[in-house]
This record gives sequence, C-alpha cells and structure tokens, in this order.
Amino acid sequence: MLRYLTSGESHGQSLISILDGVPSNIELNIDEINEELKNRQSGYGRGKRMEIEQDTINILGGVRGKKTLGGPISIEVKNKDYENWSKYMNPMDDVDLESKKVSNVRPGHADLVGCLKYDFDDARNVLERSSARETASRVAVGAICKQILKNFDIYFTSHVVQIGNIKDNNLYEFDYIKENVDNSQVRCVNKDIEKDMIHEIDKVKSTGDTIGGVVEIRVKNVIPGLGSYTHFDKKIDGELAMHLMGTQAIKGVEIGIGFDVANNYGSKVMDEIIYNDEDGIRRNTNRLGGIEGGMTTGEEVIIRCAMKPIPTLYKPLNSININTLESYQASIERSDNCAVPACSVVCENVVAFVICKYFLDKIGGDNLLDLKENYNSYIKRLGDRGWKR
Amino acid sequence: MLRYLTSGESHGQSLISILDGVPSNIELNIDEINEELKNRQSGYGRGKRMEIEQDTINILGGVRGKKTLGGPISIEVKNKDYENWSKYMNPMDDVDLESKKVSNVRPGHADLVGCLKYDFDDARNVLERSSARETASRVAVGAICKQILKNFDIYFTSHVVQIGNIKDNNLYEFDYIKENVDNSQVRCVNKDIEKDMIHEIDKVKSTGDTIGGVVEIRVKNVIPGLGSYTHFDKKIDGELAMHLMGTQAIKGVEIGIGFDVANNYGSKVMDEIIYNDEDGIRRNTNRLGGIEGGMTTGEEVIIRCAMKPIPTLYKPLNSININTLESYQASIERSDNCAVPACSVVCENVVAFVICKYFLDKIGGDNLLDLKENYNSYIKRLGDRGWKR
Amino acid sequence: MLRYLTSGESHGQSLISILDGVPSNIELNIDEINEELKNRQSGYGRGKRMEIEQDTINILGGVRGKKTLGGPISIEVKNKDYENWSKYMNPMDDVDLESKKVSNVRPGHADLVGCLKYDFDDARNVLERSSARETASRVAVGAICKQILKNFDIYFTSHVVQIGNIKDNNLYEFDYIKENVDNSQVRCVNKDIEKDMIHEIDKVKSTGDTIGGVVEIRVKNVIPGLGSYTHFDKKIDGELAMHLMGTQAIKGVEIGIGFDVANNYGSKVMDEIIYNDEDGIRRNTNRLGGIEGGMTTGEEVIIRCAMKPIPTLYKPLNSININTLESYQASIERSDNCAVPACSVVCENVVAFVICKYFLDKIGGDNLLDLKENYNSYIKRLGDRGWKR
Amino acid sequence: MLRYLTSGESHGQSLISILDGVPSNIELNIDEINEELKNRQSGYGRGKRMEIEQDTINILGGVRGKKTLGGPISIEVKNKDYENWSKYMNPMDDVDLESKKVSNVRPGHADLVGCLKYDFDDARNVLERSSARETASRVAVGAICKQILKNFDIYFTSHVVQIGNIKDNNLYEFDYIKENVDNSQVRCVNKDIEKDMIHEIDKVKSTGDTIGGVVEIRVKNVIPGLGSYTHFDKKIDGELAMHLMGTQAIKGVEIGIGFDVANNYGSKVMDEIIYNDEDGIRRNTNRLGGIEGGMTTGEEVIIRCAMKPIPTLYKPLNSININTLESYQASIERSDNCAVPACSVVCENVVAFVICKYFLDKIGGDNLLDLKENYNSYIKRLGDRGWKR
Repeated sequence: MLRYLTSGESHGQSLISILDGVPSNIELNIDEINEELKNRQSGYGRGKRMEIEQDTINILGGVRGKKTLGGPISIEVKNKDYENWSKYMNPMDDVDLESKKVSNVRPGHADLVGCLKYDFDDARNVLERSSARETASRVAVGAICKQILKNFDIYFTSHVVQIGNIKDNNLYEFDYIKENVDNSQVRCVNKDIEKDMIHEIDKVKSTGDTIGGVVEIRVKNVIPGLGSYTHFDKKIDGELAMHLMGTQAIKGVEIGIGFDVANNYGSKVMDEIIYNDEDGIRRNTNRLGGIEGGMTTGEEVIIRCAMKPIPTLYKPLNSININTLESYQASIERSDNCAVPACSVVCENVVAFVICKYFLDKIGGDNLLDLKENYNSYIKRLGDRGWKR
Repeated sequence: MLRYLTSGESHGQSLISILDGVPSNIELNIDEINEELKNRQSGYGRGKRMEIEQDTINILGGVRGKKTLGGPISIEVKNKDYENWSKYMNPMDDVDLESKKVSNVRPGHADLVGCLKYDFDDARNVLERSSARETASRVAVGAICKQILKNFDIYFTSHVVQIGNIKDNNLYEFDYIKENVDNSQVRCVNKDIEKDMIHEIDKVKSTGDTIGGVVEIRVKNVIPGLGSYTHFDKKIDGELAMHLMGTQAIKGVEIGIGFDVANNYGSKVMDEIIYNDEDGIRRNTNRLGGIEGGMTTGEEVIIRCAMKPIPTLYKPLNSININTLESYQASIERSDNCAVPACSVVCENVVAFVICKYFLDKIGGDNLLDLKENYNSYIKRLGDRGWKR
Repeated sequence: MLRYLTSGESHGQSLISILDGVPSNIELNIDEINEELKNRQSGYGRGKRMEIEQDTINILGGVRGKKTLGGPISIEVKNKDYENWSKYMNPMDDVDLESKKVSNVRPGHADLVGCLKYDFDDARNVLERSSARETASRVAVGAICKQILKNFDIYFTSHVVQIGNIKDNNLYEFDYIKENVDNSQVRCVNKDIEKDMIHEIDKVKSTGDTIGGVVEIRVKNVIPGLGSYTHFDKKIDGELAMHLMGTQAIKGVEIGIGFDVANNYGSKVMDEIIYNDEDGIRRNTNRLGGIEGGMTTGEEVIIRCAMKPIPTLYKPLNSININTLESYQASIERSDNCAVPACSVVCENVVAFVICKYFLDKIGGDNLLDLKENYNSYIKRLGDRGWKR
Repeated sequence: MLRYLTSGESHGQSLISILDGVPSNIELNIDEINEELKNRQSGYGRGKRMEIEQDTINILGGVRGKKTLGGPISIEVKNKDYENWSKYMNPMDDVDLESKKVSNVRPGHADLVGCLKYDFDDARNVLERSSARETASRVAVGAICKQILKNFDIYFTSHVVQIGNIKDNNLYEFDYIKENVDNSQVRCVNKDIEKDMIHEIDKVKSTGDTIGGVVEIRVKNVIPGLGSYTHFDKKIDGELAMHLMGTQAIKGVEIGIGFDVANNYGSKVMDEIIYNDEDGIRRNTNRLGGIEGGMTTGEEVIIRCAMKPIPTLYKPLNSININTLESYQASIERSDNCAVPACSVVCENVVAFVICKYFLDKIGGDNLLDLKENYNSYIKRLGDRGWKR
C-alpha cells in the first residue's frame, strides 16, 4: 500500500518525506519532478519568499541510479533560507525564542487553536508546520507518483477555473489544458479570462486584500475499477476528498458537476452507457467526473477544489494576543495575495498520489515487470467484456 | 482509535456492523438509536421499500445491560424482506441465480464497473452491496457515537437546504433546526420553502424523473483542537470529507461557506478573533465552518453535501446489457424519486462518527470516568488560556 | 488488504466477525469451515462447556450461493448457551448484574488489569470478552482464508509437539501430519507419545492443576516473496508473531529452529541454496522455517508457539477481591485442564489469515480469475529465474 | 497514534526516519540519543565497518530548540562511507552498476528472495536495504521514545543472556543490569560468564564461523493497562512480538518465562495477586513477564529474543549465482562474527517504541502538560482501587 509521511518546518533545515510502497525498477526523471516543484512556486500573485526558495529534490534513499529499489524513498527539499533562521529554529541546540515570537494569532490560520492544543505561547511553533510550505513535500511525492503512472499512460493536468469573481466556465479537452496551462501565469488557458484574472489580482492587491478561487484537476486514461463500492473507506472519491480537503486552504471539493447535481434532474445527471464495436463501452457525457459507486469508470476523472483566500492580509484582521488576550491586529507573515495557481499544481499532485495508490493496490506487483503483466491481463480481460483502453 | 466495518447486502439476511474503540461504561439509549434509523427511512419522496423495512438494531456483542463493555460492538439490522429473498441470496446454499439476474447495468450506479472489476455477469452481485441500504449501518454506528458525545454535551443536527431548484438560504440557529427538522417531511425548517420542495418532488415524480439536493450538517459544542495541522491525514476536515464523499450519491462536500470562499475577498472570509471576559475567546462570524488548519475551533461545525438524484428513473436511461453488449434501457430496481431528506440523516450520523473518533483520540481514556477526567483537565487548561466552554 | 474485526462475549448472543478484502468468486465449502470449528472444540482435556457448544457458522453477508461477492463477509457463531444467560448478558435491556458477578480476580487472566483499565467492579465484564471463546471467530476467519488459498494449492496443518514435559521431537513430513493429526485426541501424530501426553493430562487433572504445551504450525506450497525486507512492518515473520502472540495464552513464538539458533554456529543455521534443472532453486535444509529477510522463501513455513497452562485451576490461586481488596482464592470459571490441542487448531487458522493476507497483497486482483492470472504470471517469471513451483 | 517510517540504504547518503505522533514540549537530550547509537555500534565481535561509522543523529524537523513541536520528527543518520560509494549508489544520477554487483546470493539473507520478488539481477539492490544498518534508525526512534517516557519514570534496559552455548541464567534486578551492562563488551553483567562469552566469540571467529544468542529486554515502572484484551490487534504482547520478530536476525520471541510455560504446571506459571496497604496490589512472582490478557500488569515487562548467527561467514556457504544459476560459495559482505550485544541495544529501543506508542494511546494528550494531567488522573484512580505506583 502506497503511503507517505512528511516532516519539516517552513524555516527549518529541510522538508523531508518518506514515500513507501513504490514498486522497484521504476525509472525516475528528476528534472520532471523539479519542474513540478518549480510550477508550485510560480504564478502571478506570489510574494518574495518564492524568489528565495527555488526548490529541488534531493533523494536520500530508496533509489539507485535513478531507478527505484522497491523500498521507502526519502525525499529532501532544502529550505535555502535556513541559514538565516537556524538561530531561531535549530532543533538540536538552544535557540533565540524571543525574536521571532508570534503572540498575535492570525484568523484563518492554525495559530490560535494550535497554541491551545499543543500548549504553546508562541504561534511560531504552529505556523512553521501549518504553513503551505509543506505542500512542496506533497508535490514531490505526487510527482514521483506521476512517473509511476506514466508507464501506464495515465496523465494529469489542472487549471484555474476561478479567481475571485472571474470564472472560466468553458469546457476544454484534457490535452488542450495540458499543453497550454504552464504558459499562463495564473494557469488559465483562456487568454481573455487570464487577463481578467490578473487584473482582479492586481485590484485586490491594491486594496491590501487577498483572493481565492477554484481549481480543476483532470486525470486521463484512468482504468475502470480503482476504488470499490464494497466498503466506505475503499471509495476512491472519499480518499480523493480526504487528501484534497486536507490540503491547506481547501474548503470545498466536488467531483464531476459536483454541487450542480442538485440543480439538475436525474435524467440530466447520469452518464448513459453506450457501446460500439470500435470504441467499446463508453459514455457520451461525463457529468459524474469519471467516478461511479466509489470507483473510476475509465472516463476522465474531474475534480474541483475551492481555495480560500490567503488569510494573511496587509489589511489586517482583528485578533488577540494569545498570551495577554488583548485585542490586536493580526501580524503579517507573508505577502502572497493570490496562491490559486500554486494550489492547482499542489492539488494535481495530491490527486496523483491517490490515483497511484489505488492503481498499485488494484493491479498488484512488486516491480515494474509484474505490474505490467498484471495490468495487461486486466486490460485484456476487460477487453473481453467490451471495455477498450 | 474508533473504527468500524460494515457488511451485508440489501436483500441479505442482515446488515452487520462492528464498531470498535468505544470506551466502557457508556449508557446506550436504544430507543434513540432506533429513532435515527426511523428518520433515515422517512421523508417525502421515498418508495415502497421503506414500508417493508422498519429498521431496529439488535446489538449482539460489546454491550451488557445497555452499558458498553469497552470491546467491539456488533450491531445487526435485520432485513425483514429476506424471507422472500433467501432462495436468491442464501450465502450457505445453492440459490436461484437466474430469476433476479440483472444484466442491464444502470448508469449512475456501481453496476457496470462493479461487474467488470469483480468479474460478474450479474449486476445483482454488485447492487446488493452498493445499494444505499448500507447506510442503515452507518446510521446505527453514528447514533452510538452520538450517545458517547452526549456525555460531553456535543450535539448534532442536519437539514435539507436544497431540493432541485428550491433552496433554503436562510441562516438558522442550531437549536431551531434541531427542534423543528423532524417535523418536516423534507427536513426543511421553513414551512414555505418546505411546500415548494414537496411541490418540486411531486412535479419531478410526475415526469418519471428524480431529483437531488444539498444537505447541511451542524455540530454544536465541539471543543477546539480536534484534528491537527501537523500531518495531512490528521486534518479533521479531510476525514469528514472522506466519510461524506464516500457516502452513496454524494458528489460534493464543503465546509463553512465552502465554494463561496472563491467569491469573497480574504477580509470577508476569515473569522476575526475576539475576546471578552464573559465569553472568552470567540468569533463574530463562522464562515470557515468551525475548522481552521484542519482543527475544530470550538465554533459550530458546518458542512454541506451535494446529493445526486437517484439514478434509477421510471424514465429509463440508455444503457447496455453487460453480457450481450446490446443497447437496453436500464431496469428499475426501486422507486424513490427523492432521497435527500434521508441523506440528511445519513450524513449527520456519518459526521457523528468522525467527530467522535477525533474526540476520543484527542481526549483519551478507556472508560467514561477517565474520559471525563481528561476532558475536564483539558477544558480547565483552555479556560486558563481564555477559551471558555 | 485483508482485515477483520471480531466481536462478542463468551456468554453473549453470538460471536460476530467481519472479514473484509476477500476477492470475489471464491467458492466456500461450509462443511470444511465447520470442521475447523469442531476441531477447535475437540481434544483431550477439555471440560463440559465444549459439549454445550457445537459451533457452526452462519454467514450473514458477503457471500451468495456459497460464492464470495468481493465485499465484507460477516460470520456469526451462535452461543447456544445464551438462552440461559440472557438475563445476565442482554445488551439491550436491564440485566441481573449481581448473580454472576466476579469480584475475585483470577491470576493469569485479564481480570485484574481489565477491571482497573475499564473501570469495572465486576470481572465478568472482562472475562466475557477476554475468554478464549473468541478464538472461535479466529478459526472461522482462518478457515475462510484456507479456502481462498486452496485455489493455489497452499495448505496448512499443525500438531502438538509438547504437553507438559512430554515432547515430540520427531520430524514429520507435512502430509504425514495432515493425514494423521485429526485422529489424535491430543493432535500428536506419534502414538506412543500421544499416550504419554494423555497420561500427563490425567495426572495433572488428578492434582487439580493445569498444563500447557507447544504447538507447531506448518504451511506447504507457500510461494516465495510474501512479506518484504524493505520495511519493518512488512516482514511476514513479524506479522505472524503479532497474530500468534496476540492469541490467548501464547507466551512464545519461534520460527524454524527458533531459539535453537542461539545454540548453533552460523554454518549450521543457514539453509544453503542449491540448484538443479529438475527441481530448480531449492534448499537441503529448512532451519529458518521458510522465512528469510521477512519474506517467505518458498520452503515450508514452520512456526511454534508456547501455550501457557489454563489459569483457572481447581486448585485455586491466591488472589484478591477487586472491590474489598481482601485475600481470596480465585474462583473457577471453567474446567478444561489442557487446551493445547485446541490451541493447535486456533494457531493454524491464525497463521492461515496472515499467509492469506500477504498472498492477496502480493498477487493482487479483485476476483479469482484475476488472482489466477496474476499468480500464473508471477510463477512463470520465477520459473524463468530458476525457481519452480 | 505513534508511527514511523524509515528509509535508506546501508551505503546510501543517509538513513532517514520520520517519527509522527510525539506530543509537543518534550525536551530531548541529544547526547543520550547519540549514546544509544554508539552502544548499537559497540560490542565484542564487530568488524571494521563499525569503526568507519560513528553514528550521530541530525534532526531535520519537528523539533525546535530541543523541544518537540508536536509534528512529525525527521531524523537523519548520515552514512560517513557514502563519499566512497556515491558513484555506485547515487539516487539521482547514472551509477556504476557493475563494480559492486552481487550475483552470488547469500543464504540466510534476503538476497535470493529479494532478487526474485523485486526482479533484480543484482543482490546489491536487496542487501543495501535488508542490511541491519537500518537498525540505526530504529534505535534513534526508540531513543526518542525513551525520552518521552522518562517524564513518567518509565525506564528500559537489556542484556545478553546467551551467546552460543554460554548462558547467563541468573536473575538480576533491573537496576543492577542498567548500571552494569554498558560496561560489558558483550552486555553481560556477570563477569565470569562475560569471559566465557568472549572466549566463545574468539573461538568461533578462529573457525571462520559466526554465532548468535539471546537477549533480554526489561522495562520498569510500566503502568497497568497498556494494550487490551478486547481485540487481537490491541494486545501489547502481539505488537511487541511483531516489532521484535521483524527485527533483523530475530527468530524467536518470548515473554516472561516464555517457552518454559510448557514445562510447568499452571500453579507454577501464574503470578498470584496479593495486597497490602503499603504496596497496594502486587505480585510475588513475575513469570508472565508483566503482561496478562494482552495488557501490562504494572510489573516489570520482560522479553527475550533469539538472534540467529550472522549469515555471512568467512567459511562460506554453498549457494548459487542468481543470474547463471551456477553453484557458488556465498560472498562475504561484512565481517562481524557476533552481533548479539548490538542486538540487545536494538531490541531495547524497539521495545521502547512499542511501550511509548501504547502509553501515549492509553493516556492521551497532545502536549506534555495534558499528558501529565491525564497520567496523574489515571494513577490517582488506580490508587483508589488499590494499585500504587
């Protein structure tokens, strides 16, 4: 079973992840993994921190000569800023606890509850871990998962479909998004809407406010049968929702037409099943986003997530000092005013982990060769039933 | 750690659940549990099956004299219809496989993919388990969880906020919903809107179509600090989303204002933190639905789920025969045309499980007395920090 | 992933288990499962309870017409004695708590610590669950696992190698044990030693004492590669040890020559690797019990477990009243004086679960057909490397 | 729930572990952790590798100023030899795969099965991970667990009770072992027996053979009630056995008098329960090793493990070339001829993890203060029942 743990603070020495359950003999393209990390750091609306960090992975174990060994893979993403922060953050020595102390907890962050739960008088101890910096680990992990699935022609993309009130409601082909999205500063594949989004970000910035949005993740060539209706914790839509809702700033997750299922009658929500000899079993529509009964159908997986605006505003919010309980205006820790494009990259890689986990679980096999054999047997059997890859 | 497994088919002998991790000495009110099961079966728009089954629980283990023993609790919900179905469904003898065979797979159900994945030529083998009948188990489990949390004054309610195009956008106090919702056939607490909803259901029924909606779940008196920002799989919003999205027919989950975070600037999304000596630390607003950084804040937890229309329509959908691959119109297995009120009950109890799991994990203790001691210590410590129950 | 939960008290209504993760289309032989339950209840040295209960399974879900459906399987073993106990044990009604109250905690049982941990003043609440009666559930689960593995010619047996000071140190072929062990009242396949064992049991019984022993479990035709050296919690020897040491009364577990590894030099402990064209890669010895590096080697798996004597003696032990703290002599709850033969049956089925779990995890596949395809691919690939089935 | 993953190869850049679930505000003594690592590398009978590596931990995350932050802790143990091995082991670049290729698989190691399972033609890819070098990670993790439990006066020690045929059957007090064991090169606290053990090691070395032994782990001041009889996977003896049997080279695990339970009648195996006002509830004996019904009793926990001799002998074993299938004599990778003292250190720390996991689970609390409050409440309640710390 594919699983991973992440560790590390925003201004600590490194972000460390261990990804366990990757089959052996998978060739990794390190540049492609670093490309994902770079995409995470890009996007219109980011602040200065992104210029300090230029993330690249350092694999410390589980891989030899770019091929996976079948054991746990440890991945380091160094925090380049650590040299300036070691006197405050050093794990193994006494540190200066006063200079960077955060007593004024920030609404919308983990600060207040984190201090209560973990018995801290300094929200620094919270925010260093709750920070979205941790998503660099998730992207690194997801990027490795993509490399596994590439062997089976399963591909991922994502784009931004809303920033503030600017929406991109157009339907795009997977390949169109994949080819164009990296060229857009806001990961919007429509040039006109992109302009409006950038304008919206600028407008919000000028008021000292922040802005959220909606991202859409798409997965192509997923085979039918990932996940299962047989038990509540085996449904792949549930696990996707868990990982996405558990991503920093996400407040809503929907699959296919999502909340719009409520606005339509049943006859306009289901995807009718058709068959012809050439294409095999197919659907004319994909309103359910490639998932029925907690299982992938073989159609494209389509998911959307709502990201809340970054809680740290130049125009600060009323809050309190956690130690004195006096009113205060929440301090500014960072200066992005829109991180929706980054969120798109993060969510895409988060989805890649889940799809990969279910794929490996379904197909079985400890190494690439066995995986391929099992995969081919499955595809062949489905072919006998009328479903074609 | 609270955990459970469910088993059983729609027309099998019984639905069985085992709930493990319940502390000892919790007194169970069996009537209240049965009341939840009854609520699940009620609601305008349900078909005839609901009249056949009048679910009640039979506890087979883990409880003695209505008090929990600290071990796994096994719960049976008998299928009263089984006597008519045993010749088709008997697990331990040869059965008539032909009479109830379903070759025409139904779009929007697990039928097609289930047959492919599990190598069946009969969707009967799929639909018996994928059926929403399984939610009776989830309700029974959640109802026990509620009884645990009642000892700590944590309460749950839910209502229907949308059926088809009829929406109830009003804000209601928790207690108002709790007191009124069971009196409504559609679990809508606004009498005018309720009428419109019923009218909408009737209208849809007359066309042979089905209709979905949106339900809202609310939890009162949750303590701060359930869940954690420290790891992606400890975030309570993630786990809530997993369980809810993994519930039959749910296609979207949102917390607080949910997708509306994208339509508002940061200054209108965050919940400012205030303090006064009487109330302690509080918020004036609750847009984030009682969860920040993957942790409960102590404010009310508010979640909404989108339920898709029931896929089985009198006005049937195009589909195929899974064995011959010929075109066919999907067969009708049941006749509800709106199950949104039931979904509200199910989701409420699903949420109860998650809150209870995190509560027990956070507080610790093998029996009610230790739980209470630990709980009181925690509440007292939070009191010292300015947060009041 | 194969997993299960058990529930139920010794004098409760039923023992319930849910076994999840069984592939679909596995045909179950109900008689064979009941045969295992019967074997568990047999054996020289058992008391009267065994005559009351004649366990048989009732499958409540997950199976249709004797074939698995791919979903969770619920298994009931009814307690025939419940009708006499319902007034003391009924979960859903008030019960007579006084008549069967156990204040005098029994050394060697869970009674004392159970009462402390779960805040009970009545060890009845503990012993009903801690009782070895629960092993009926484990046998039922393991018996189903055997039926899965039978499709791949993997077989299990076990025998008693020590009762008290009487030891059977002979080496037997798997098939010899399998064919003869059920004919022995003490599951000893050597007729002379069997007599000595029975004599020993009689002798101990006459003194009012009890006696333990050692059982050996053997698994034939296990394929190489179940388990993994890559992570500590993937080693199959670890998981076997967990399940066995977690079985009632087991105090020691060893694999292959076990503790004897300490008495021999390295050159006499390792199993040299040989090859010839006919047999492929093989070992001349099997001192390591078919497991190297946490993985099965393809040789027979051999495990031994030490069972402590039953703690409840006619010759009672000094103890205390848990409520008054006065000295007392521990009360007698049951009257077996040797349960080692039963333990052999239990441990064999416990091992069957673990082997099956790792087998399914390694091979992959949701249904029998896919499992077989994947299995054949694996065996073929190993054949290319020189290892033959 | 306390959990950890480890990663890294024997000649890779670093061993990395992530330990998740440690409460906040635990002060770590880094020197004590490094002391454990040093002890693991010591011991009579080790070869040259131990001189190259002088392990120390580098904490990369989860700790600030020597205090835990409540999040996952990442721990690095650098492989000092990596600079010489990077051209063969570099994860992110092409490497020389030929120079260090191991085709001759070594009996008693994971080599053969590892190559079959993971589809390798080079056992280097196996042995780098299956190597006991990984135990450095386990010691680091266990050492942190000890620091947590020190706050509750729970202490650990271990010693060697057998090397080859030389046994130390004396009973020692916990404190006597703890104070003397680090002074012994073979971790034997009896000076005469120590001499015999060293002599035995020398003798074996002179013949080119290797030798195993038995180690005993002891835990003092464990509170009653860790683990539970209520479910098979909650029994602490099972989990201890899992972790220990899953430790490199362990082939047997026993608790208390272990396999000797079979040689004694029930009246000589159980630990009678006594009470006096001064000491509270106590036992006069501790034959069951501090565990009854899968729960700690409050008496000392006593466990013994059998370690097999190191499989790599100067006097090599017959084996095969995995690629040509020709007979060969297994190659020598390292030169320890007795690692039993190191095994004692490893197993002690492995036990520390399990005890800590169950302790945190039982007591509950996210930070040291809450843990202490909950602990005190529990101890006080037990005091009311007659059990005294």
